[in-house]
Amino acid sequence: MSKESAKKLSTESYKGVRDFYPEDMFIENYIFNTWRKIAESFGYEEYNASILEPTELYRGKTSDEIVNEQTYTFRDRGDREVTLRPEMTPTVARMVAGKMRDLAFPLRWYSIPNVFRYEQPQRGRLREHWQLNADIFGSSSVDADIEIITLAYHIMKAFGAKDEDFVIKINNRKIFDDLAKKHGLTPEKKTALLRIVDKKDKMPAKEFQQKLDDLIEWSFDLNIPESSDITEIRLRLAELGIKNTIFDIGIARGFDYYTGTVFEVFDTEPKNKRSLFGGGRYDNLTENFGGDRVPAVGFGVGDVTIRDFLETHDLLPEYSSPAHLYIGKAGEVGNKKIQELAWKLRESGIHVAVDISDKKVGDQVKLAVKQRVLFVIIVGEEELARGTYKIKKLKDSTETELEENKLAEYILKNL
Amino acid sequence: MSKESAKKLSTESYKGVRDFYPEDMFIENYIFNTWRKIAESFGYEEYNASILEPTELYRGKTSDEIVNEQTYTFRDRGDREVTLRPEMTPTVARMVAGKMRDLAFPLRWYSIPNVFRYEQPQRGRLREHWQLNADIFGSSSVDADIEIITLAYHIMKAFGAKDEDFVIKINNRKIFDDLAKKHGLTPEKKTALLRIVDKKDKMPAKEFQQKLDDLIEWSFDLNIPESSDITEIRLRLAELGIKNTIFDIGIARGFDYYTGTVFEVFDTEPKNKRSLFGGGRYDNLTENFGGDRVPAVGFGVGDVTIRDFLETHDLLPEYSSPAHLYIGKAGEVGNKKIQELAWKLRESGIHVAVDISDKKVGDQVKLAVKQRVLFVIIVGEEELARGTYKIKKLKDSTETELEENKLAEYILKNL
Repeated sequence: MSKESAKKLSTESYKGVRDFYPEDMFIENYIFNTWRKIAESFGYEEYNASILEPTELYRGKTSDEIVNEQTYTFRDRGDREVTLRPEMTPTVARMVAGKMRDLAFPLRWYSIPNVFRYEQPQRGRLREHWQLNADIFGSSSVDADIEIITLAYHIMKAFGAKDEDFVIKINNRKIFDDLAKKHGLTPEKKTALLRIVDKKDKMPAKEFQQKLDDLIEWSFDLNIPESSDITEIRLRLAELGIKNTIFDIGIARGFDYYTGTVFEVFDTEPKNKRSLFGGGRYDNLTENFGGDRVPAVGFGVGDVTIRDFLETHDLLPEYSSPAHLYIGKAGEVGNKKIQELAWKLRESGIHVAVDISDKKVGDQVKLAVKQRVLFVIIVGEEELARGTYKIKKLKDSTETELEENKLAEYILKNL
Repeated sequence: MSKESAKKLSTESYKGVRDFYPEDMFIENYIFNTWRKIAESFGYEEYNASILEPTELYRGKTSDEIVNEQTYTFRDRGDREVTLRPEMTPTVARMVAGKMRDLAFPLRWYSIPNVFRYEQPQRGRLREHWQLNADIFGSSSVDADIEIITLAYHIMKAFGAKDEDFVIKINNRKIFDDLAKKHGLTPEKKTALLRIVDKKDKMPAKEFQQKLDDLIEWSFDLNIPESSDITEIRLRLAELGIKNTIFDIGIARGFDYYTGTVFEVFDTEPKNKRSLFGGGRYDNLTENFGGDRVPAVGFGVGDVTIRDFLETHDLLPEYSSPAHLYIGKAGEVGNKKIQELAWKLRESGIHVAVDISDKKVGDQVKLAVKQRVLFVIIVGEEELARGTYKIKKLKDSTETELEENKLAEYILKNL
């Protein structure tokens, strides 16, 4: 062993990120598959890109706080400035702008990227998380806004959430544009106003008022009536059975690029009362690449948030092993015959793990139980000669004796 | 618009990585799903981890060339040295070592991570690629070596490869250990010998011989007979119908951590004759974490390599859109009824995209064709009143008139 490896290595992961042991990965896959299922049921096509992006992609686009303080940015060995993507929207705008002439708009696209933020890790905030991004490109119709919110709603429902478990808060950036125009706010002051309003619920009412007073000379009206765009969206959503929506002037969203409808999904559970995720319309982002303006609307929802939500509402799925059947070995039984049996079952769609532990029969069964396999059979010369097998369902210890050609059917029926 | 964003941004990705537009993502998903299907059919459980790892995980473990010249390594804002994982094996060894007491050995684990190398991009070599890693932990039995090679074989078969399309070359690191012992080689000289042998096929025979002569004083025998371990593995694989294996002393593998069986899968197509992927036994890696020794055997196979193989052998799948049905709108038809129809079909398992383009009927159909949706119906007041729809199969333009409650069945039957 070399000198370096004589020093004991830590088994800890890097700070603020997660290891996914099979039980955790099972939940991740449940979340990803639910996202995927609903997005594809609406006809969304999947795309992806590298986590590495030229840093210039984010300068002046995302919020400055994120780029300057919260990204992983470094120089590669060729002195290029590289950033681990902190969000997916600039990447997808780059991709859409890059193939503008070849794409058949309006596009429905989704992706499940991991994104990176250099933050102090805390509940619901890690340095790396995965998120579903779903977007429509090339439609400025309110139909697109409605579809995106509908998709967000059905994702919550697919996780088992009831209508009363969450509320969709809707706003429109144009309300701020109108205010800025009316009161002659500079773009910088408008951005500052958005930031304060966006963080309204994270500070005491008094502090919020103080910040407003420091910034603007007029009185900001928290009870401003909803705009006609928002009324139309909420009415048409209600028509489709989506009634857990409200207008909230406090929904501003952290990113600078939004231009119209913005929304956030909130947990209504008092213990977990917070924004789960959100999105909105951003019609100008592709212009940064020098091409045409492609109107867009979309949202992003994270795995950490959804997992917290599922835990809070007792909606987490129970772990089940990918192995349906464990084949144990009794005595000196020929490997060839066991492997042939295993392969036949695999071809019928059964996931089969064959014992390689060399343990005693009883210990092989214990191992199958510990690995949470669903069924076990023990194969010895006797079983092979007879052509029948005692199959044990490990959940309730029921045993059934079956001929070889009945095994697959029995397992598939009892999965 | 701010000053920064006035500068036109490039639509190019970072050098040496890929954008996955839906057509490319479709192939990626085909590759990932095939890996996943075969790994799970053998009972392998999926795990994952962050791409960010403490740099110390790789020092003195992976090959020095990789750590010092080919990793993405940087300091985070908290001055921690971080590396984007160049391979998955150190990560999984860390995870196994970290929960040694809780895990039920032998484990069968797989993952589909992306990994990073700072290299000059060239065919088959990019700076980021995805790979399947499949490993057995906690078995030193030759059964485990055989299962891992069997899994690699069935993955190739699942992609449509025929036995004559590839060959599995097998070797054993112990042959080098024996040579080192016999000739009194230092560990450094043994590693240097492995490196030369591993690159044998990448240099002219004369250069290879010169390098050997410079390193060792005895004559390295390329025709050394296969060891009894290798014979056993090859015979038992042949028994299972896996006959495209050979012994090859030239298979050494680039990583230092292998301790026993090593293997590589080669394309036999003359135009693409090269190593596709490989793996082997590494019994000492968990010891670096100060815990017990956990014997392990596994392999990794990359998406770029597999895609090249599929292209070369004409095995790439044809793109099909996730949207099964496109619902177009004729005239001023109520959105509510169309959305209700779409949702009913989605609940029957049909993926439905509803028109949001506001184009004319003919152009809506053209759009559906361009997006490669499979079926289209146009809904107007007439169709809604009648309750029947003309469904058009876009592939061959056949039209069928069906009642609403027959649509889902028809589509599912014709997918």
